[in-house]
This record gives sequence, C-alpha cells and structure tokens, in this order.
Amino acid sequence: MEEEIIESSSIQNLWEEVRDLSLGNPPYIDHLPTPPTPLQFLRHYITPNKPCLISAAVPHWPALSLWPSAAYLRTTLSTAAVSLHLTPTGKADSLTPHPTAPSSLCFASAHVETLAFPEALDLVSASGENKTVAYLQQQNDCFRSEYAPLAADCEAHIPWASEAIGCSPEAVNLWIGNNLSETSFHKDHYENLYVVISGEKRFVLLPPTDVHRMYIRDYPAAQYHYHKDSGEFTLELDDPIRYVPWCSVDPYPSPHEKQREMEKFPLYFNGPKPFEVTVKAGEMLYLPSMWFHHVRQSPDDTGLTIAINYWYDMQFDIKYAYFNFLQSIPYTLSNDPTLYKIRNMESRFERFLCNSGDESDVIVTKRDVRDGSDNEED
Amino acid sequence: MEEEIIESSSIQNLWEEVRDLSLGNPPYIDHLPTPPTPLQFLRHYITPNKPCLISAAVPHWPALSLWPSAAYLRTTLSTAAVSLHLTPTGKADSLTPHPTAPSSLCFASAHVETLAFPEALDLVSASGENKTVAYLQQQNDCFRSEYAPLAADCEAHIPWASEAIGCSPEAVNLWIGNNLSETSFHKDHYENLYVVISGEKRFVLLPPTDVHRMYIRDYPAAQYHYHKDSGEFTLELDDPIRYVPWCSVDPYPSPHEKQREMEKFPLYFNGPKPFEVTVKAGEMLYLPSMWFHHVRQSPDDTGLTIAINYWYDMQFDIKYAYFNFLQSIPYTLSNDPTLYKIRNMESRFERFLCNSGDESDVIVTKRDVRDGSDNEED
Repeated sequence: MEEEIIESSSIQNLWEEVRDLSLGNPPYIDHLPTPPTPLQFLRHYITPNKPCLISAAVPHWPALSLWPSAAYLRTTLSTAAVSLHLTPTGKADSLTPHPTAPSSLCFASAHVETLAFPEALDLVSASGENKTVAYLQQQNDCFRSEYAPLAADCEAHIPWASEAIGCSPEAVNLWIGNNLSETSFHKDHYENLYVVISGEKRFVLLPPTDVHRMYIRDYPAAQYHYHKDSGEFTLELDDPIRYVPWCSVDPYPSPHEKQREMEKFPLYFNGPKPFEVTVKAGEMLYLPSMWFHHVRQSPDDTGLTIAINYWYDMQFDIKYAYFNFLQSIPYTLSNDPTLYKIRNMESRFERFLCNSGDESDVIVTKRDVRDGSDNEED
Repeated sequence: MEEEIIESSSIQNLWEEVRDLSLGNPPYIDHLPTPPTPLQFLRHYITPNKPCLISAAVPHWPALSLWPSAAYLRTTLSTAAVSLHLTPTGKADSLTPHPTAPSSLCFASAHVETLAFPEALDLVSASGENKTVAYLQQQNDCFRSEYAPLAADCEAHIPWASEAIGCSPEAVNLWIGNNLSETSFHKDHYENLYVVISGEKRFVLLPPTDVHRMYIRDYPAAQYHYHKDSGEFTLELDDPIRYVPWCSVDPYPSPHEKQREMEKFPLYFNGPKPFEVTVKAGEMLYLPSMWFHHVRQSPDDTGLTIAINYWYDMQFDIKYAYFNFLQSIPYTLSNDPTLYKIRNMESRFERFLCNSGDESDVIVTKRDVRDGSDNEED
C-alpha cells in the first residue's frame, strides 16, 4: 500500500471551482419563473447537479387552496391512520447529547406513532405547549399510502421531471409540521423535487464537493420513547449498539455555542458560503442528489407548514464515483480558523453578523428550541 | 499550507468503481442500433459522461455512397484549397525523440501546407512510398470552410445531439487519411460525435477518472519542416522553447519496447482494461468530453479512411471540477508492476497476448511505423 501527499489547498480549490464554473455565487441559486422543459431540466440542472427554485411550479394544483384549511384536511383524512413523529425539541434524526454520557453526542430518532389523522393534527398544532413537538412525516412513500385520500389534490408525479429522468417517482412524501420542526444536515441518494403547499421552508445547501465541511462522523444510534402518562421522553441507545455516520455541523448554533462550534468546524464556518433558499407556498425546489441540506420552516397563519416531495432514483455515475473518491481522502484543518479566512478575505462569521437582520425571526425560534435541548445537556 | 495523506488505493478504487457503477466492462461500450432521442442521449450518455457506438447513425447521408469515390471528391473539390499535414511517420501531435537529445522526447507537430485538393489527395494516396505520410485534416472547423463544396452530402449538425446539448456544433472537421496516420492519446474539451464514412477507425478510450494512468508530462514543443527538394523532414524545437503537457503512454508499443514501456507506465499497462471500439463506415461514436482517446485507422479498398466529427461545447460543471481536483493529486506507482497486478489478478500484458490475434494486422502496420521512428532514436 503506497501513500501519497496532497495539499489541503486542492480540496479548497474544488469548493471554489465548482461555484465559479457551474453553481454561481452563494447564497443564490437559479430561480426559474415557470417549470423547465424536460430537456432544459436535464441539461441545466440534473446533468451539472445544480439546484434551482421554480416559482409558479404547480399553479393548477387544488392542494394549494385546499390543504391550508385544517377543516378540509380533517374531513378528507377523517379515517386515515398516519405516522406521527414525536420529539422533545423538534429535532429528529439529529445529534443530541448522549443519554448516559451527556458530554458526547448520539444520533436520535423520533418516537413514531400511528394515529388517526385528526388526533395527530391536534398534536402538531399543540406542539411546544407541552415539551412535545409533533411532526407528520414518514419518508416511506407515505403520501401514496397514508394520505391516499388527498391524491386528487396534486399530481402523482412531476411530468417534466419524470420525462427528463425517464421514470416515475420512487417515493412521494408528505410533511405537515410547524415552526419547531427542523431537519439536520444530511444528504439523500435521490433527485428531489420539493413543493411547499403552505408556509415556508428555509434550506441551507452545500454541494457534494464540500463533504469534508460536514465533518461526517459515526454516532451511536438512539431512539426517543414518549411516555403518554407522564408526557415525558426518554432517550435510549439502540441495543445492540449501532453507529450512524452523520453530519456534525449545525449551521445555526445558539449564541453561547457559536464560538465553540466555529472552532470545532472551521471548514464549514470559514469556508465558502453555503447556498440558501426560502421555498414559499406554490414554489418548488429541485434539490439535486447528494447535496447536503438543512431545513427549517415557518408556518402560514394556521400555524402549519405543509410540503410534499418527490424522490426520483438518481444515476450512480461518474459523479458518484468522484464523490466517493473525494470522501475517501482524509482531510481536516487545524482549529485555527484564520487559515482559511486569510485566504478568502472574508469569514462566514462576518457574513452571519451582516445577515442576521433577515433571519432574526427564525433565529429566535431556533434559540428557543436549542434552549430546551441545552437544558438536558447542562 | 497543510498536507494530508491519501492511500493510492483510493485512486485505484475510483477507476474500478466508475466501471462497476456506470461504464460497464471494458473493452465494451454501449452499442445502439439507431440514434437515441435527445432525452435518451442526455440522460444515458452526456449526463454520465459515457461513450456509445451508434450503428445506423446516418443512413440517409449521400456522403456514404459519394465520398468513397476518389473521382467524386476530386471533381467536387477540384478548386478547393485544403490543409495537409505531413510527417515522416504518420504520427503528428505526438511524442517523438528530441531532435538534439534523442534519449528524451519532444511533442512534434506536423508540417502543414495548403494545397489544391487533388494534389493533396495524391500525396495521401502515395503516403508511405517516400518516407512521407500525408493526412488531410485541420481541427479548425475545416469542413465548413475548406470543404464547403461537400456540405450537401451530410448534415450541418447532428439534429438529436444539437437538441440535447442545446446548441449547434462549435466545429466540424473532416479527416481523410490512410492506415499510416495515427493520433496519440489526448483529450478534448468538447462533446464529440465522430462519424466514419469510409474505412474504419479503432479507438482506445480511457475515462477522465484514469488521468494518472496517462502520465501527462510537459514536453518541449517541436515542429516538423518538410523540404520538398530533398523529400526530407527536419524537426525543430519551438523558439522560444514552449512546453506542452501530453500523455506519455503509447498503447501499442513495438515488441522490443514493450517491456520498457510497461515498466515506465505500470498504472496504464497493469490497471483496468481500456475501452476499445472499432467504428465502421456509417457508424458514429459518441466520444464524451474529457475522455482520453488514441486512434488508428484502416482504409477501405480505395486506400482511404474518411471521417467527419462534430465538436459541441461541453459543460464545465461539477464533473470538470472533480476532474481538476483529481488531477491535482500527485500519484505515481513504483515501477514494480506486480503491485497493481496482484490486486487485480490479471494484467494488461496477459490480455494483450490473448487478444493479439484480433489485432495482428493493425499491429504489423504499427510496427512498420515505429521501426521508421526508432531508426531516428537508435
């Protein structure tokens, strides 16, 4: 086995070159007023693995006017049994203090319960009142099974995407939540078309070239268990113990954690800006396969955020092979964030301060959530 | 500047993974009986950067019946002034012994002369008789300028490719040569559609992931000058001296050089098989951007090989950024070819011996050419 030397600047050059050549200047992604043709979609977005936001994506869907009414949903789904995810913080599939060694972290999955839809929706609406955050979601094609009574309100697939990709969606998932639910950085092995029906979703996106900036590490898997009688959660490690590789970075650390997080993850906080996009009701995000994404949301005036996403099979082609090669190269930077900062003449931290006005409402929300989580740690 | 360690096995895994996942088993490439639709072409070939051979690619082109007649070409192009490339060996844009330090190599370009087509064609036909190999080619869109009188015999572009790629060809080039002309390993920054009209072309192909196997090195540029009076060539270094990065590997070394070449370039000779394809009259090769290709040819019964190729602009996207990253990593293997051989349980050398029956006619031709070249070196 031979070993060769690479310079860390090679990987930093890759991050910048993919932005310079193809992706454009973050935080902005391409914005299309109407859907592309299948050829345009393949040529300009799937082939280069590049996200885009489409404004008038689904103007003809009845869902846009029907689903924001809780009464409509309750009636249509009155007998539906649906999967509800329960957590104490709104953060499922996310890193949280280890139950028996709170100075380290584990990968915590939600408590999942099957309930009648009206009862489940009550719990989503009441989230936060009782240290419980409920999120109607299940990434197992739930829209076509649990939510079948809503099928006529939208399309079974995205026609121009199906024609471009050459197949039907592998899974269609519905998401009904509120401002407390949040999805931590991760990637999916699917081409993803994500349509917001009600409220807004805020995505932070990093291309697969930036994999080292996510500090993917193995964390022990754990599971929340919700105890109805006490209204309390316990968090239990999987037995036998099982490790899940997961992104370590939280893009929105709470103020008192910020300095420590920036020192732990300098490649993220001092590297090139991530891409960011807010997807509003009626808009669609093309989220390319293998892109890292972090998602927060804010509700409409009914208190709900509703979205539906279509997962299409990705091609495991030369891009995927290059990604695996890149990921196989060990690469970390010392904790001195100035190393990268000097080279780029600006830091993520400075941008964070400049932009905080835009995001203050969401950040406040985030702080509330973290405060709950932090209590467990402190 | 920090340095990190990678294992050489990461790069070898990349070579194998791209074949396992996407490209298939070399030496075979996809073979389509008829042209793909624009969507199929984008989805299955351009997006994954994967070659294919198309059989009945241009059945309606008059060129297929007209151009194999030298009389037709002489008449139609009777007043055309065309670019003729002259070399002593048939190898232009290729490595050859350095004119003043013959134990090292230089990058030699052909002597280029503009002649009336009938006279130029006589020289192509007479190639080899007088230590001069003539090749009608010029990669500057020559078909649409020098050969404009032939325009009606084929299409100005490949309609399904133009629709897929979203533009017209950047350049269309005509190639009229014979069995002595050969193109050394190189890559182009274009999507290439290559149609053979007469005779056959034999391509050896390596994907861009295999860049380290090409041993790209800087060679001093030199130029052949043909002296009509003596019928001799001189080879002169560019002044001021100029270096050209070029692939070092000849996939068909002559028998007495084979052992030395295999020791110099173990990553090529002991790595995964290259892809190989023979393109016959009426067939089209899609040669993806950034693929390394080596080309030899054999004529039809008139002694000529005629081909036309369409260069379309490539997208400089995430694949290109990954390629540049990969190329930036220094990687060579010691001269011990068993290192790779042991891992793969077979060697290119063994395959070469097994396959030599199929290729013996072409190999003999190659030996003849090399013998001439070697005389200069010995």
